[in-house]
Amino acid sequence: MRIAVAVFDGFTSLDAVGPYEVLRMLPGVEVVFAAPTAAPVTDDAGWLTLVPSATLDATTTADVLLVPGGPGASRNLGNEALLDWIRRVHATTTWTTSVCTGSLLLGAAGLLDGLSATTHWSSVGALESFGATYTDRRVVEQPGGIITSAGVSSGIDMALRLAELIEGRVAAEAFQLAIEYDPQPPFDAGSYAKAPQAAKDYLAAR
Amino acid sequence: MRIAVAVFDGFTSLDAVGPYEVLRMLPGVEVVFAAPTAAPVTDDAGWLTLVPSATLDATTTADVLLVPGGPGASRNLGNEALLDWIRRVHATTTWTTSVCTGSLLLGAAGLLDGLSATTHWSSVGALESFGATYTDRRVVEQPGGIITSAGVSSGIDMALRLAELIEGRVAAEAFQLAIEYDPQPPFDAGSYAKAPQAAKDYLAAR
Repeated sequence: MRIAVAVFDGFTSLDAVGPYEVLRMLPGVEVVFAAPTAAPVTDDAGWLTLVPSATLDATTTADVLLVPGGPGASRNLGNEALLDWIRRVHATTTWTTSVCTGSLLLGAAGLLDGLSATTHWSSVGALESFGATYTDRRVVEQPGGIITSAGVSSGIDMALRLAELIEGRVAAEAFQLAIEYDPQPPFDAGSYAKAPQAAKDYLAAR
Repeated sequence: MRIAVAVFDGFTSLDAVGPYEVLRMLPGVEVVFAAPTAAPVTDDAGWLTLVPSATLDATTTADVLLVPGGPGASRNLGNEALLDWIRRVHATTTWTTSVCTGSLLLGAAGLLDGLSATTHWSSVGALESFGATYTDRRVVEQPGGIITSAGVSSGIDMALRLAELIEGRVAAEAFQLAIEYDPQPPFDAGSYAKAPQAAKDYLAAR
């Protein structure tokens, strides 16, 4: 079971690491952090630098493809080499997945045309520009093994569902227990529908 | 505002990256991933390799110290150089925090003696061996700015609370919205009290 996580400068760390922390517990798994070159990639905040396991070119197949988002995803929507890689690896996968604006890369690669999908709440218009229908759910499963998830932290929920699809419910529940994922956020501001206006204004001002 | 995240071989990626993804949004923040040497460190699963920003020796002060857990934390409980670094940086911090078994490192450094604290559910005895009283809560705040959090994913909840303490509730809610942290785990198996026996057996068998 090979899991390929695409990484590139400007990716959002938690988009990749949240699901990784779940999926890496799958029996017999091999995880590849695949980047455009062998050089380390730095996340969107600029503080976290990751050493890729392999280049994109060296990563030709995967059982699961995971595409994270971030400003680096948006900057690569016209990067034909990356989009072509996504298409080629997708042709070999059982599951092709995205977190946050990683769905825009799937969209730009032509994989979401006519499908329901989700993305970060701030990128609904961009997602729909690729022919997808935005669905206000945290995890959206579609025919063809395409699963998109909403903003950043939703990748953890998505990975638990994916673990269930791959290894069954008991295993997925065990992984949830292993990461003690019994979330208790101190506020109820995690969706655009629920966040107070002051929090939205705070983000808009930045 | 300098945030020092200790990293070492065998750390659990999400312990570090979950809170990082929240705290890196604090205004004027600088994040340092501090490691024993300048060489890259690899996580407990063996697939994720991170380039440190600085060595421990070069990281002498921090406003927030974050210590992740993982098998690498347990292996370092007798590493006097690391424990001494934790003590020295703690003397400069406003907040000294841990995720998962990172609390064992705080304990081994002598910072938890007589305090309430938490850790991963599997490490309660080890935590109490350092004079701490285990508290079955996701985030435990104590006098002296010491905050411990439970297993792996709890670091996200902890970081949101810490963001509130540092920057106020509106900012913390904005960060929650930014990472779309409206958790909807597909199962209710995230705590030892709630997980089904079959999931516990699955983990025990590995």
